[in-house]
Amino acid sequence: MDDSQETLSLVLFSGTDDKLNAAAVLAVGAAAMERKVDILLQYWALDAFRADRVLKDHGVAPEAGPEGAAMVQRHGGQHWSETFRQARDIGVVAIHACSLSMEMLGLDREDLDPMVDDVEGVAAFMAEATGPLTFI
Amino acid sequence: MDDSQETLSLVLFSGTDDKLNAAAVLAVGAAAMERKVDILLQYWALDAFRADRVLKDHGVAPEAGPEGAAMVQRHGGQHWSETFRQARDIGVVAIHACSLSMEMLGLDREDLDPMVDDVEGVAAFMAEATGPLTFI
Amino acid sequence: MDDSQETLSLVLFSGTDDKLNAAAVLAVGAAAMERKVDILLQYWALDAFRADRVLKDHGVAPEAGPEGAAMVQRHGGQHWSETFRQARDIGVVAIHACSLSMEMLGLDREDLDPMVDDVEGVAAFMAEATGPLTFI
Repeated sequence: MDDSQETLSLVLFSGTDDKLNAAAVLAVGAAAMERKVDILLQYWALDAFRADRVLKDHGVAPEAGPEGAAMVQRHGGQHWSETFRQARDIGVVAIHACSLSMEMLGLDREDLDPMVDDVEGVAAFMAEATGPLTFI
Repeated sequence: MDDSQETLSLVLFSGTDDKLNAAAVLAVGAAAMERKVDILLQYWALDAFRADRVLKDHGVAPEAGPEGAAMVQRHGGQHWSETFRQARDIGVVAIHACSLSMEMLGLDREDLDPMVDDVEGVAAFMAEATGPLTFI
Repeated sequence: MDDSQETLSLVLFSGTDDKLNAAAVLAVGAAAMERKVDILLQYWALDAFRADRVLKDHGVAPEAGPEGAAMVQRHGGQHWSETFRQARDIGVVAIHACSLSMEMLGLDREDLDPMVDDVEGVAAFMAEATGPLTFI
């Protein structure tokens, strides 16, 4: 196995803007290295990919405190959704919505941002993601 | 190395019901793919495996908000403890309690749910988990 | 590839003392197994490595509650910064500050604890960390 070609399999669970941004930066970094990126959206990360919520304020991790939250907002870099789009433009990046989480949140495919490729069960994701899993 | 046989090594740290459920679903998915699953329980995940607390409400991630928390409760799927039990029934799944966390929380072996196999130090876990680690 | 020699690549994002402690224990465990350890500090983990903040109280995960937080404080084991130092003493451990997070938090190299080796972009980190990534 050529390690440098190893797929980056990300399970995105958290729905705060700081973690989604960190995940997006890893995805674009891996795509730039010509690694495949395979993403499963669960729970609050999936909720953040709702078409009508992507650009809303999703807050930051609790330990940021008000000072940290203000710093994240002021920094005003590229939005994480734009970074994910960029990753898709330069590499092979698949974004799946977890079917269990879709059901729990009462979502349909058309509720999601178009950059989500499909709805997939965890079993199908695990069948592809036979290597390491990074949980964010 | 046959990647599809790679052990899924999970370090469970978080003790909220949503993350424990996500972890349980990954464990059962890996077990269904005939991957070995090796789990180390630390901190609040270990606390959630106390025999007298497994079925209590452990809350959800802060970003869920009250609306999200209510949705998780309403969904009422299988409890994560049941999903871990199922993973153990269909595959090779070991659940270890981290000895440092046991000490910190003042727990004895008999305080834990019987599905926990043993108490183990991080060094011993790392000696087995020579591949990727997924931290949840 | 000899799996037992696989680098442990940690992306540290969270800045609470419990998670930093868990990360430090994994790092020292890997170093003791003679695995290389490569760490990227982002966001609140980077903030916690500021020279003037390392030893301050960084709180714990929200699910700990006041009881859990008190237990972590009472336990009073070795501080996580000491454990990271120990990992560096016994093994090959590199600690990088993420350049994007440095900018966001308005930090200079000299604001950080001396155990941080350098400032590095995510792309450079991903070029080294071609294997699994553990996100904490």
